[in-house]
Amino acid sequence: MKVGIVGGGQLARMLAIAGYPLGLDFVILEPAEDACSSHLGEHLCANYDDETALAELAEKVDVITYEFENVPVSAIEFLDGKCPVYPPAQALACARDRLNEKTMFRELGIGTADFANIESLDDLKQAVVQIGLPALLKTRTMGYDGKGQQMLREDTDLDAVWKEFNGVPTILESLVLFDREISIIAVKNVSGEMAFYPISENHHEEGILRLSTSQVDDPVQSQAEDYARKVLEKLDYVGVIAIELFQVGDQLLANEMAPRVHNSGHWSIEGSVCGQFENHMRAVVDLPLGSTENLGYSTMINLIGDLPESMEVLSIPGVHLHLYGKSARPGRKVGHITVCEDSAEKTQKILDQVQVRLT
Amino acid sequence: MKVGIVGGGQLARMLAIAGYPLGLDFVILEPAEDACSSHLGEHLCANYDDETALAELAEKVDVITYEFENVPVSAIEFLDGKCPVYPPAQALACARDRLNEKTMFRELGIGTADFANIESLDDLKQAVVQIGLPALLKTRTMGYDGKGQQMLREDTDLDAVWKEFNGVPTILESLVLFDREISIIAVKNVSGEMAFYPISENHHEEGILRLSTSQVDDPVQSQAEDYARKVLEKLDYVGVIAIELFQVGDQLLANEMAPRVHNSGHWSIEGSVCGQFENHMRAVVDLPLGSTENLGYSTMINLIGDLPESMEVLSIPGVHLHLYGKSARPGRKVGHITVCEDSAEKTQKILDQVQVRLT
Repeated sequence: MKVGIVGGGQLARMLAIAGYPLGLDFVILEPAEDACSSHLGEHLCANYDDETALAELAEKVDVITYEFENVPVSAIEFLDGKCPVYPPAQALACARDRLNEKTMFRELGIGTADFANIESLDDLKQAVVQIGLPALLKTRTMGYDGKGQQMLREDTDLDAVWKEFNGVPTILESLVLFDREISIIAVKNVSGEMAFYPISENHHEEGILRLSTSQVDDPVQSQAEDYARKVLEKLDYVGVIAIELFQVGDQLLANEMAPRVHNSGHWSIEGSVCGQFENHMRAVVDLPLGSTENLGYSTMINLIGDLPESMEVLSIPGVHLHLYGKSARPGRKVGHITVCEDSAEKTQKILDQVQVRLT
Repeated sequence: MKVGIVGGGQLARMLAIAGYPLGLDFVILEPAEDACSSHLGEHLCANYDDETALAELAEKVDVITYEFENVPVSAIEFLDGKCPVYPPAQALACARDRLNEKTMFRELGIGTADFANIESLDDLKQAVVQIGLPALLKTRTMGYDGKGQQMLREDTDLDAVWKEFNGVPTILESLVLFDREISIIAVKNVSGEMAFYPISENHHEEGILRLSTSQVDDPVQSQAEDYARKVLEKLDYVGVIAIELFQVGDQLLANEMAPRVHNSGHWSIEGSVCGQFENHMRAVVDLPLGSTENLGYSTMINLIGDLPESMEVLSIPGVHLHLYGKSARPGRKVGHITVCEDSAEKTQKILDQVQVRLT
């Protein structure tokens, strides 16, 4: 069976690595010639909105998926009539737009921060009064890793900020003073089978995920699964989905979702019986899902900006290195490290050694 | 770093899958256009003895390895001056020839079956008297999966058998009435670091490996490691090596070795902290070796001849499926299944379910 992947970054790379053992082959649509997944399948080198290339992709494969949500919805809709595309276009359309996703969360009874749709400076000023400050002004679409957002405080010049956003559709969200940030990775296959990974506790710096730790028997696991189940069902979802949540007391507020495998689930490659990449593949080709059970106490550290000395980090027993084949560049995710041991203490001890070698 | 692999079958495929996360890239020299590893790297489609292609390979990569021992030694020697090649040519030369390998085992004080070099019908007749019957007449080179060998019994017509072998160099080996067949997978990197996997107990049918079970705290582990260490040192070895052994009472007799990753170590992908494929890659690019520690009780079942119904086998929780992207053909290894659970009983229970679905 042949799978098409739109987007050829590290997520496509890890999807292909997980998919080959299932007997799958890959065609990857990606405009960058030196994309880090280009050796891991047939590389269709074209823009995501190139309809000739999209038609060729649909022709060549049995099913199509995508590795990130900034694929134009029109491209997915174009493919849709020609070849099954998962996750479905409506999930992409919803996830790409912060207003749509938050509105859906609310409709499903899933808690969120207060928010308001902002289409004008007047909207902004009114919403600031309603929601209060501090608050976050975010572009509705195309934001990731902390890009496309601005914190508004009491002394912020709203006119200046609004000018900066230059009329793009935005959403104002109240700032949540969370106790911790978590995420749940869930998966549903074509036949409707669902599975949920243990939640991850996530730490961001400068808007970029730095560290995710898989939680064992967490008290909010079932609440998070309940949220994820509602979303999977509502969207007729197929594939892996990630929902990022804030925990405030014992309450969970959904922040955003990603209709794809997610950085906060990378620990599952070694940390689960069946990792998120393999389960996404199983889901879209409609195979039974693999067990999402934890194999131990897992933490993932992102490698950002600089490539580590492989010699240094691999000399620490228990380190699993994942490089993405990308060159170093400030702020760029170039790889990750996972540690999975049979106690939280052992995992922490190795992490401490890793942190020393990375700095 | 770029690695060249000579041979493009399932071993090359699994080497590449294990090597990408280390940040490695691959060029694969393989004459078959539709080889099952051809999508997993740059495919140099040429014969193994094509010197233009070999030179091109050496030019393109930083280090070269090979996935099977039937590569011509001359090809490896040709490459050797141009680019580091691991395992070293002398290991290949030794492993390709049953007489050489058994002679080396003996020189290292490693037990073997009685054997004799056979170059003529007279040699054969004399050796039969010396060694006794039953015995196995085997071609010295190019045998695998039970091919190129013939059992000699009391009533065997030696003249007819000798005629069949048609003058190719052969070796006569006494038949060992073993208690069990085991193998040890060992690895040594360029810097000289060594590691040893827990031994596997292996079951063959019709000369083809069917099932390997990783042994936990086996009483002959240290004897097997001792044998492997001697061989690694003797051959200035770099990479993964497999030594197949017969156990008779508490004694181990070396049967043969393979200068490569080995079918009886496939369970290590899920069953070890660091699998044999990743450790081979680490060894040849001189990274610190990963831990060979068992993660549980692992058994691997080969899928031979027929492709299984993925739906059927993956519906059993705990099954790890590895398909090689090859079409079905009698006697052909098309994939394997690994089960790794935290008790031997749990593993056996899942295996029983797998066996039912496969038949």
